[in-house]
Amino acid sequence: MPVKLSPPDPARLLPVPGVELGTAAAGIRKPGRKDVLVIRIARDSEVVGVFTQNRFCAAPVTVAREHLHAESGVRALLVNTGNANAGTGDEGVARARAACTALAELLEVSALQVLPFSTGVILEPLPHEKIIAALPAALADLRPDNWAAAAEAIMTTDIVPKAVSRRVNLDGVEFVVTGIAKGSGMIHPNMATMLAFVATDAPVSCEALEAMLRHGVNRSFNCITVDGDTSTNDACILIATGVTAAPVIMDDADPRFAALREAVTGVMTTLAQAIVRDGEGATKFITVRVEGGRDEAECKRVAYAVARSPLVKTAFFASDPNLGRILAAVGYAGIDDLDVNRLRLHLGDVLVAEKGGRAAGYREEDGRRVMAGSDILVRIELDRGQAAATVWTCDFSYDYVKINAEYRT
Amino acid sequence: MPVKLSPPDPARLLPVPGVELGTAAAGIRKPGRKDVLVIRIARDSEVVGVFTQNRFCAAPVTVAREHLHAESGVRALLVNTGNANAGTGDEGVARARAACTALAELLEVSALQVLPFSTGVILEPLPHEKIIAALPAALADLRPDNWAAAAEAIMTTDIVPKAVSRRVNLDGVEFVVTGIAKGSGMIHPNMATMLAFVATDAPVSCEALEAMLRHGVNRSFNCITVDGDTSTNDACILIATGVTAAPVIMDDADPRFAALREAVTGVMTTLAQAIVRDGEGATKFITVRVEGGRDEAECKRVAYAVARSPLVKTAFFASDPNLGRILAAVGYAGIDDLDVNRLRLHLGDVLVAEKGGRAAGYREEDGRRVMAGSDILVRIELDRGQAAATVWTCDFSYDYVKINAEYRT
Repeated sequence: MPVKLSPPDPARLLPVPGVELGTAAAGIRKPGRKDVLVIRIARDSEVVGVFTQNRFCAAPVTVAREHLHAESGVRALLVNTGNANAGTGDEGVARARAACTALAELLEVSALQVLPFSTGVILEPLPHEKIIAALPAALADLRPDNWAAAAEAIMTTDIVPKAVSRRVNLDGVEFVVTGIAKGSGMIHPNMATMLAFVATDAPVSCEALEAMLRHGVNRSFNCITVDGDTSTNDACILIATGVTAAPVIMDDADPRFAALREAVTGVMTTLAQAIVRDGEGATKFITVRVEGGRDEAECKRVAYAVARSPLVKTAFFASDPNLGRILAAVGYAGIDDLDVNRLRLHLGDVLVAEKGGRAAGYREEDGRRVMAGSDILVRIELDRGQAAATVWTCDFSYDYVKINAEYRT
Repeated sequence: MPVKLSPPDPARLLPVPGVELGTAAAGIRKPGRKDVLVIRIARDSEVVGVFTQNRFCAAPVTVAREHLHAESGVRALLVNTGNANAGTGDEGVARARAACTALAELLEVSALQVLPFSTGVILEPLPHEKIIAALPAALADLRPDNWAAAAEAIMTTDIVPKAVSRRVNLDGVEFVVTGIAKGSGMIHPNMATMLAFVATDAPVSCEALEAMLRHGVNRSFNCITVDGDTSTNDACILIATGVTAAPVIMDDADPRFAALREAVTGVMTTLAQAIVRDGEGATKFITVRVEGGRDEAECKRVAYAVARSPLVKTAFFASDPNLGRILAAVGYAGIDDLDVNRLRLHLGDVLVAEKGGRAAGYREEDGRRVMAGSDILVRIELDRGQAAATVWTCDFSYDYVKINAEYRT
């Protein structure tokens, strides 16, 4: 069950001027299920995106990248669940293009102005004709206040829909940042997984928006792991419609840049953490914070070694303060000149290890008290520099094996 | 339960002239359990070793490395189970030294001529006095035909002892290679894990022996993964006593070099595969073979990405030919210019994927037939070069979570 994660309150999801959303049931995998989402974006919006690094990337990722590079001005996103259109070769690309073309004709824009996204089972042909047939219904449903329905439409095996809004006041003008995401493992079973769509009505140049996207993603979606597997379909899109009037934020010299970036990063972080809280079989939400490293990269390397270790994750599932597993993971993180005698390890507020071994004052019952919680902080001080990094993960339970072993049966 | 792995037949374990083994019960963790092993080695033997890369390496690893570098001529190995002497700081190093000194006095050699090895629980002080008290009993037990007892004495949570012998005829002279190993996960619960001791009576120079060790380890112990965690205590020692008379094998120009290296590698490979077959919760033994890579390193990277993926491993547990998970793991292995359209994936003798998707002739029932076996070959052709690599792993079962979650309860 999700770890302290509730569905978003629709009343607290704020429309983003310049963005409308509509859903429809195309019958891709389950009859009657809303499985198609269209996001229509106002003319002259800026849209930027990051995509999976997986070489086996899905057809819609290939097409979305191409269309973004064409710089024709994105006018719509077309998302389907139930089928990831991944591992489908040239035919998959052709079908993704056909769906974009059909939506473009209905919207009277160019096909290059539509970005496709798919999530669901992989290695199955995309039923693009069903999607195309559902487009008129999705367009009829287009409304600015439809974010909650959109969050639900993009779920695959997520248990809880993920959506959040923030208001940000920039020089006396109120703007909104709203985002939705789906995902429940880095790859859900043979689902191809993480999608996130975040939008603001602030006016932002393409370069500044790109910078905000990278900043946000590096502190949110790039800081989570459920099982260490990287999906073939991951994508995160950031939209700035600029519909609410104000001078354009051109770059980080503008004092509003940092404030908006902060709001965008906050929305992304909430969504990223929600993915971990809804992680497959998760019973605990674990924050791994590494401090005192020479640079952020080595901090992240150590944090990921701990967060990915099956031994550490099963110990968390058992609420067992198994210090040796955490220390061993730090030791194999690949920092050749790490002095383990300087390292300090904390579980919550308890110092548990220092000077190459168990801390003198450590009592097992203190460790057990921390591990009994559902939100746990592991803090590692490397004592060799000023950098820090944080990674979020969940534990590794019987249900993880069950979900993944029985997925197709 | 171990996958097709039987205890060694003691009658088929061949003594190595120049090597005697003795065990004793020191009561380190379980009363009456044989938990101390002494391996006495003839004067003028060559001994070489490789050790864990984990920065959090155990005290005995530190001491064994030091003693090996001293080049005083190794005369004995002292191994204990029940306690890994890891995460024990300076006091742990002092205790490892004290145990070496005690054995050295009994054998009338220098303490630098004794290498210590420990395996068992970590973060607990080594009860070195119990080990020292048991040494006379271990020495009284020294016999050349004691390999089976030695293999049993070094077990921790291994279910099956691991030992194997080979004969090798070099220019008409018959030599023996015999080895033992222990390990059942890269780190067993909070056990610190893999140890392997291999010996031959052939006369080999230190340099040639070192070359054979690296060759063998790179094709055996460095090709396995159970859970991707690297232990704090891993060590592999190769001994050449030279007791059986013959000209010394100085280097690889000697035609006998390749034949002996082959025998050593064979013994190591059998032991390494036995560790995987006895892997925590294993129900399947999986060989991941990657061919057609530009170099061995990239082949190994792909093979490990597949072999470590929790999603792939749970699919094997379920006997589910989930091709998408394997392809996705190949895709995120970190080969930036991999052309996924040239890749071919085989399960056993069945071509399952090519040209970026499922193979045209593939039928699900053929995949299921292969997956139903307990020994499964995954073969991946990258079609971009001549190199190849093989990695062995096991599946990921409920029992893996159970063993690791409940280990300390």
